[in-house]
Amino acid sequence: MHRPDMNTEIPETSDIITAAMIVVGDEILSGRTRDTNAAHLASVMTAIGVDLVEVRFVADDEDAIIEAVNTLRARNTYVFTSGGIGPTHDDITADSVAKAFGLPCDHDERALEVLATHYETKGVEFTDARKRMARIPEGAGLIDNPISKAPGFLIGNVHVMAGVPRIFEAMLDNVAGALRTGRKLTSKTIKCTYGEGTIGVPLGKVQENNPDTIIGSYPKYEGEKFSTDIVIRGADEAAIDKAYIEVEAMLYDLSKR
Amino acid sequence: MHRPDMNTEIPETSDIITAAMIVVGDEILSGRTRDTNAAHLASVMTAIGVDLVEVRFVADDEDAIIEAVNTLRARNTYVFTSGGIGPTHDDITADSVAKAFGLPCDHDERALEVLATHYETKGVEFTDARKRMARIPEGAGLIDNPISKAPGFLIGNVHVMAGVPRIFEAMLDNVAGALRTGRKLTSKTIKCTYGEGTIGVPLGKVQENNPDTIIGSYPKYEGEKFSTDIVIRGADEAAIDKAYIEVEAMLYDLSKR
Repeated sequence: MHRPDMNTEIPETSDIITAAMIVVGDEILSGRTRDTNAAHLASVMTAIGVDLVEVRFVADDEDAIIEAVNTLRARNTYVFTSGGIGPTHDDITADSVAKAFGLPCDHDERALEVLATHYETKGVEFTDARKRMARIPEGAGLIDNPISKAPGFLIGNVHVMAGVPRIFEAMLDNVAGALRTGRKLTSKTIKCTYGEGTIGVPLGKVQENNPDTIIGSYPKYEGEKFSTDIVIRGADEAAIDKAYIEVEAMLYDLSKR
Repeated sequence: MHRPDMNTEIPETSDIITAAMIVVGDEILSGRTRDTNAAHLASVMTAIGVDLVEVRFVADDEDAIIEAVNTLRARNTYVFTSGGIGPTHDDITADSVAKAFGLPCDHDERALEVLATHYETKGVEFTDARKRMARIPEGAGLIDNPISKAPGFLIGNVHVMAGVPRIFEAMLDNVAGALRTGRKLTSKTIKCTYGEGTIGVPLGKVQENNPDTIIGSYPKYEGEKFSTDIVIRGADEAAIDKAYIEVEAMLYDLSKR
């Protein structure tokens, strides 16, 4: 498990780039809404070579947001948040993130202009509630929102983005290209009809023989029968291929018992 | 927001019972597998009157599991984990939780007996890998697994359960009845076709007038149009009804503009 020590800073020269995510919202924790942004971020990070190492769902609660932002930004290359940047009283993410950084949070001229133009074009009143969406911590960069215009923002290494999945995904598209990326993990999957109890010991030996790969075993239970996906991950394709052949040989041995 | 202070112990007499969840697994953080256990736990906790206040997805990494267990068990009534208690080398949750408590983790006689009987009945060899699933921290209580028999366990206030959703859900059914429960939040939802920018200011006033409720506003974006679900939650039905009437009056006023 080539993970950075959790308590030390990642050196600039490291080829391991880590990210963490904070999903903000009572509606997720009450079970009312099912989060899909974490899974989307996970797939995108894996594809570009950033290790997502932690996700936290926290309530619409200032202390909880501040604690998560400050803990995770200190030990990861990047943090992404989703949710709580809309125009209503329960949207407190922007203010909470500003407090985490000890920065003032006020109406941002650039954001006000984007929104004013948008609402003027649509012939919609630019209400005080809508102006709330221009509240941005001092010194933050804006993240473009091609759908409903209200921007996200980047402050330090923290990307603050919308909770509505289509907007979260569009904002992520807009920032992903600028991220520093590291080793890209690729993977090969072998599906087998053995349960984990059968493959456990020999698979552990294959892992020992192949320390440059991470071999995971994922049981599925469908109806009355277990099956298992064996996933070999790593940054080195030759190492993955070597482990793959050993897993296949292991399964062949089991089939002859 | 009637949330307990995050740094103080919840008094025994409190009617607020909190829970946190730890979802363990590289496969979730890589985007390979989509977690469904958090949403299931959230719905069950809401139904029985336990406030789920935080969820963390962590990697199959001992330090990460220990940190999450020790932080969350100290400030919540209950902690639930899912994943990492199978028979393969990458299943390290039981050992990591034992370390978090400073307890030895070894083959548990009760668990060995349950598993031995199960595999004997099935005519399946009780391999060393399968015996791994009997590793339980000293002093833990077992959580029955009606599906594949390998038990979960309860140590302190931490429930350690399987990651396979059907097994996680069955284990939760087995422990939910024994939980101390508190105020049960109920909710009423009002769907409206206004965007949040339109309702933001008046809805904030309704929230101010109704401090015994938690009013949330959840935007949806379908096609070209935003709509909003307004959700009023609380422990007091009369308070919810009062807020509900004020939201309806607010929407009626908006419709006449």
